[in-house]
Order: sequence, then C-alpha cells, then structure tokens
Amino acid sequence: MKDRSYGLVEPNSFKSDEPIQMVSGDVLNQYELVYETYGELNKTKSNAILICHALNASHHAAGYHESDEKKDYGWWDNLIGPNKPVDTNKFFIISINNLGGCHGSTGPKSINPLTKKPFGSTFPFVTVEDWVEAQSRLADHLEIDKFYAVIGGSLGGMQALEWSIAKPNRVENALIIAATSKLSAQNIAFNQVARQAITSDPNFHKGDYYEKKVIPYDGLRVARMLGHITYQSDFVMMKKFGRQLMETGNSKFNTNINFQIESYLEYQADKFAKSFDANTYLRITKALDNYDPASRFQNGLLEALSNKKNRFLIVSFSSDWRFAPSHSLEIVNALIHNKSDVSYVEIDAPEGHDAFLLENENYHKTIRSFLK
Amino acid sequence: MKDRSYGLVEPNSFKSDEPIQMVSGDVLNQYELVYETYGELNKTKSNAILICHALNASHHAAGYHESDEKKDYGWWDNLIGPNKPVDTNKFFIISINNLGGCHGSTGPKSINPLTKKPFGSTFPFVTVEDWVEAQSRLADHLEIDKFYAVIGGSLGGMQALEWSIAKPNRVENALIIAATSKLSAQNIAFNQVARQAITSDPNFHKGDYYEKKVIPYDGLRVARMLGHITYQSDFVMMKKFGRQLMETGNSKFNTNINFQIESYLEYQADKFAKSFDANTYLRITKALDNYDPASRFQNGLLEALSNKKNRFLIVSFSSDWRFAPSHSLEIVNALIHNKSDVSYVEIDAPEGHDAFLLENENYHKTIRSFLK
Repeated sequence: MKDRSYGLVEPNSFKSDEPIQMVSGDVLNQYELVYETYGELNKTKSNAILICHALNASHHAAGYHESDEKKDYGWWDNLIGPNKPVDTNKFFIISINNLGGCHGSTGPKSINPLTKKPFGSTFPFVTVEDWVEAQSRLADHLEIDKFYAVIGGSLGGMQALEWSIAKPNRVENALIIAATSKLSAQNIAFNQVARQAITSDPNFHKGDYYEKKVIPYDGLRVARMLGHITYQSDFVMMKKFGRQLMETGNSKFNTNINFQIESYLEYQADKFAKSFDANTYLRITKALDNYDPASRFQNGLLEALSNKKNRFLIVSFSSDWRFAPSHSLEIVNALIHNKSDVSYVEIDAPEGHDAFLLENENYHKTIRSFLK
Repeated sequence: MKDRSYGLVEPNSFKSDEPIQMVSGDVLNQYELVYETYGELNKTKSNAILICHALNASHHAAGYHESDEKKDYGWWDNLIGPNKPVDTNKFFIISINNLGGCHGSTGPKSINPLTKKPFGSTFPFVTVEDWVEAQSRLADHLEIDKFYAVIGGSLGGMQALEWSIAKPNRVENALIIAATSKLSAQNIAFNQVARQAITSDPNFHKGDYYEKKVIPYDGLRVARMLGHITYQSDFVMMKKFGRQLMETGNSKFNTNINFQIESYLEYQADKFAKSFDANTYLRITKALDNYDPASRFQNGLLEALSNKKNRFLIVSFSSDWRFAPSHSLEIVNALIHNKSDVSYVEIDAPEGHDAFLLENENYHKTIRSFLK
C-alpha cells in the first residue's frame, strides 16, 4: 500500500485574526490552524473532503514529510491516496490539526500574544462544536462553500456528526466511523483515570509546566497506556503477545516488566509522551466526555438529526468495545426514524476500536463505494 | 440479608516460626496469618471450608467487628452466615488474609525482625502457590487434614484451583468462581498500568515509603479507579450513573470532575487509597499476572488437572469481561477431558466481574446445592 502513497506533503497554515468564541464562553482573538491537503480542488469546488482527527492524531493523515527519515506516513495513509478509497485523483482532501492541538495549531503550548507566555492552564477547554466552527472558517478561507464529504473515525466521527447537525448545508456526505453521539459512563471513567494520572503528576504544575522546563511525562505515559488498551481487543492482544515473556528474561518477582505486552505498551507510552502535549490530552478527553448533541435538543438525538438532506454512512466494527456497534446503531436508528438517507455497515474485524485505522477489504470497499 | 449475618466476629492470629520458602526463592523465617472463623468445627473435622480472597479484600469475609461503628460487614456476608449458601450452622469456615497482605498478616508494611524496619521493597513477590502453601500450614495448625471445600472468586478462585492442583488430597470440593487459570494479555496490561501509576508516584520511594511517613496516594488512587472500572460492566455503570452530572454543577470546561460517575470513582479511590498498602497491591497484581499452572506441566492445563478425585464447581458471569466465561470454560473443558466431576454454571448477571460478590438467586442456589 505504501508504494501507492500520496507522497511528499507539506503542511499549510491558516492564520485568522477574527476572534472565535468557544462554547465555554472563552474567546481566542487570533488563532492558527495547521492543515494538509491532498489532491486538487476542481473548478466548481465541489470535490473537497474534510478529514477530522481523533484523540491522538494530527493533520498529517496521508503521504509523508520531507523531514521524515523513516517516512512517517500519515495516520490514514492506507485510506487516502491515488486510487485509494478516498481517492486523491478525484478529491481535494483537507486534514486539519484541531484547535487546542499540539501539532502546530493554536493550543495550550502556543504563546498567548497577550502575555507572551504559553497559554498553559489558561487555554480554553475546546469542544467538538468549537472544532467544527474553526474548520468551517478554514473552509471559508479556502472558499469552499460545501464539502463533498466530512469523514472521521472515533472522535473524528463525532465531528462529522456535528457537521451534519450544526452546518448541514455545508456538507453533502457525512461518514461517521467507529463513533458515538455520546460517551458512556465507562468511556468517561477511563478518560477520568487518564486525566487523574496527568494532573497528579508533580510535573504538571496545574498545567503551567512549559516554563518550568518539565512535562508530566509519567502521567502522560499512564494515560496513553490505558488508552491504548481500550483501543484494542483482548483477542488481538492475546494473538499478538499472549503471555510471551520478554527475551531479556527479566525476573517475574519484582515490579519490572517481563511480559511482551508490557514492553509493547511501555514503548507506545514513551513514544507518545515524548510527542504529545498533556494539556491537549486533557482538553481532548474533556471534549469527548462533554459532547452530547442530543442534550441540546428537547427531543434528543431524534430532533438533532431531523430533516437532514445529507447522506450518511455509519460504520462500526464488531470487536470495538470502546464505541461498540450499539453506539453507532443509536445514530442509525435516529436517522431511520427521520427517514434520512443512511447506510450502516458493521465490519467484522477483530482489532477493536483501532480497526478504523487499519486496512480491511470490506471496510475500504464500503468507503469507496459510498463516495462514488 | 444483614439481619441474618453471622454477627460479631474477632480475628485470630496464627504465628509460625517455621520458615516458608517462596516460589521466588525468598524465605520468610517467621510469619503471621490473620484469619477469621465462622461456625463450629465438628468432631471429625470434616466440615471445614476455606475462603480465599481476591485483590482488594481481606480475611473479613462475614459478620462484623466490634470496632465497626457502622457495622462494616464482611465482603461475602451475603453468602456466608446462618442458613446462607455457605451455611455457618453446618460448616466451619476459615477466611485468611494472605501472606503479603495489608490487613494483619505478614506483608510489606510489617516489621522485618532482622532489620527492625518495615520490609518495604524487600518483601518477597508472593505467588498463588505460596498462598496455598501458607493456607495449608494454617490448616495443619488447626489440625484440619482435609477441607470439605475451598471457595474463592476471582483471584480467590485461582487459589481454589491451585489447591486442587498442588494439594488435591486436602480438599474435597473446589469452587472456582469468576476466575481464570491464567491472565490474558489485556488483563496483564491493565495491571501494568496500575503498577506504573503507583511506582511513578514520587511518594513511592521504590517501595520504602513507610519510614518517610508518606504513601503513594495518588498512584494508588489511579490504580483503584482503573481496577474498579474493569470490575463493572458498561451496562451497569450506564444504568447507575449514565451521563448524570453532579448536583454541585461544576463547570464542564476544566479538569474538575463534573459527572456522577467521576465522583463515584473518586470516592472509591479515596476510600481504597486510605486503607490499602501500595506494596501489597503491586505484589498481588504480580501474583495475578504470574499465575499460570499450565506452564508448570508439559501438557499444560490438561496435565495440571489430570486424575483429580475432587468435585469441581466452576461459575462464571455473563457480563464479566475481566475474566469472561471463556476463561472458566477453559478450566471446565480440561476437567471434562480428564473425566473429572465438574459442574459448570454461567450465571446471567449484568454487573460484570463484581457479580461474584453480589446476591443473585441462581448464583446462591448453585453454591447452596453444590455444597449439600
């Protein structure tokens, strides 16, 4: 698949001086959004697709950067590219690092122009609604009135859903993958444990750690390890790692790691903690917890999704226990009740929530045929 | 049910000067086991039942203590008592705080007689096998040659299983409830996250925190919150707490807690972190990870469970995703293959792993009728 990658890409930047008010009431007077594009915008500007990212990702969805020694391909490179399901020969694809992120867009580690210091603890707790608003402003800037499609998996799927609710006339197709219209109590509980690990790390300094030249590394590691477990299925972890011990043969009788699954999680945790900002992690998990469009309407999700002219594709994965197929079905049922144009596919995949990032023939065929 | 409690109980203590060698190679020259008993031992000493505890529990399985202002009933008080499924009118029931525990038996916070300081980091990493050996020594002390039954849920069930493997002639009935013969990769991963939270707490001091008058409170809180989530089902958490907000009406736009599920977990975490020892938690989770009797036999579990004259009752719970019914079935299948006397019941219960601690008519009827 890699040889069919979109290839070398360079991030773009959109800087706005138009203040943006958040759901929280906070206002950012200026902000920057970093984004990548793949493919060419046609003359009628009718072939634009917006890709929305999930918790751990960035705007780098496809291709690779010149700086990538090992060619660090985008997180959805298997889906987006020439002749791929989201075909760069046909579509103009935009992928944004969300507001509050840590990969270039204005976020907690950015310098607050008013104080000349990093925002840190003062950065607003952004919401899915705020992200959609910011994304729409980039669309304005690019003079795109209407997206052919908005596509997202997991938290990205919540943004695709929100586009259909908040800006239904600016999106033709909403592809809501491995997502939910609201987190369950268990989902919230896992996020809370992750936040607790970060905020109780003594290097967190209530969010103002940048100027102290430390990061809440240990807390972020714990958060990531926990997250990673919930993205995978017990089955796949058992198949990949089982109860295999590390080759180093560490003793079983101390707190050192000795199972391969532990070593794998430590590796993932270190990689993540070195590259991700803890304040961003806190804000994104809170955005996840807080998103609940049904709560904004008297008649809940039914009303939130009433009178939609958009086409919807809802995809779930059989082994996803973070956002199980029942979460997707809740959205599907509301759309069916409203006589909307909705297709639903539950993909049989053993990989858990992460399946939405992986190659799977039925999954890719579904996306490809829906976008035709 | 409480009015049928066994009533006031007082813990007993068994002190031994006979050295005990651990699987790890470590030796404890002296040790103390704290235990409770309910009911009367008959003349032929044929009515003794051993109760084995799980991760978070103690020897206090039934009745209440004089010191309990609010009558803090034992963790299995609904199961053990007069005319209850484990009937104190018929049986003499013994419940031990395991070696390495923190409720009175010799453990990491005990004083090492050689150094006159708490064992701390030097306390051995105990195993399920070690616990069974220590329990058998208490049986010797009480002059009980053979238990009528050994009963345990979760990690306690692993001890009941180990009795049938290591000391099959000293137990008639093994009741293995909500248990497994080995942890899965996901199980181990969750335990690792909990350990990571504890050991990276700056108050952990590599396990020697007692003399510094601190405890790794924050780490232990995170560990307990995470554990608690995995003991429950998404369904039950959703039913109990859903997405209900706290009545205090905290803002959604900061890291403070604002959902009721968060408040509940914080409460559980505080309660636990105040009463449980972090070094014990580390050792018990490692004992869980390390237990794998199949690995001690060339032909695995089949050989481990061959030629058993014991009667077995294996119980699983439909919504238990920590030790799912498939874990129980692995044990059942090995016993069936060996033509052993095994009964298996999957109880339909929505509460997840914690169901083994709760009242459930079919569950209690199963235990009662098996012990007849």
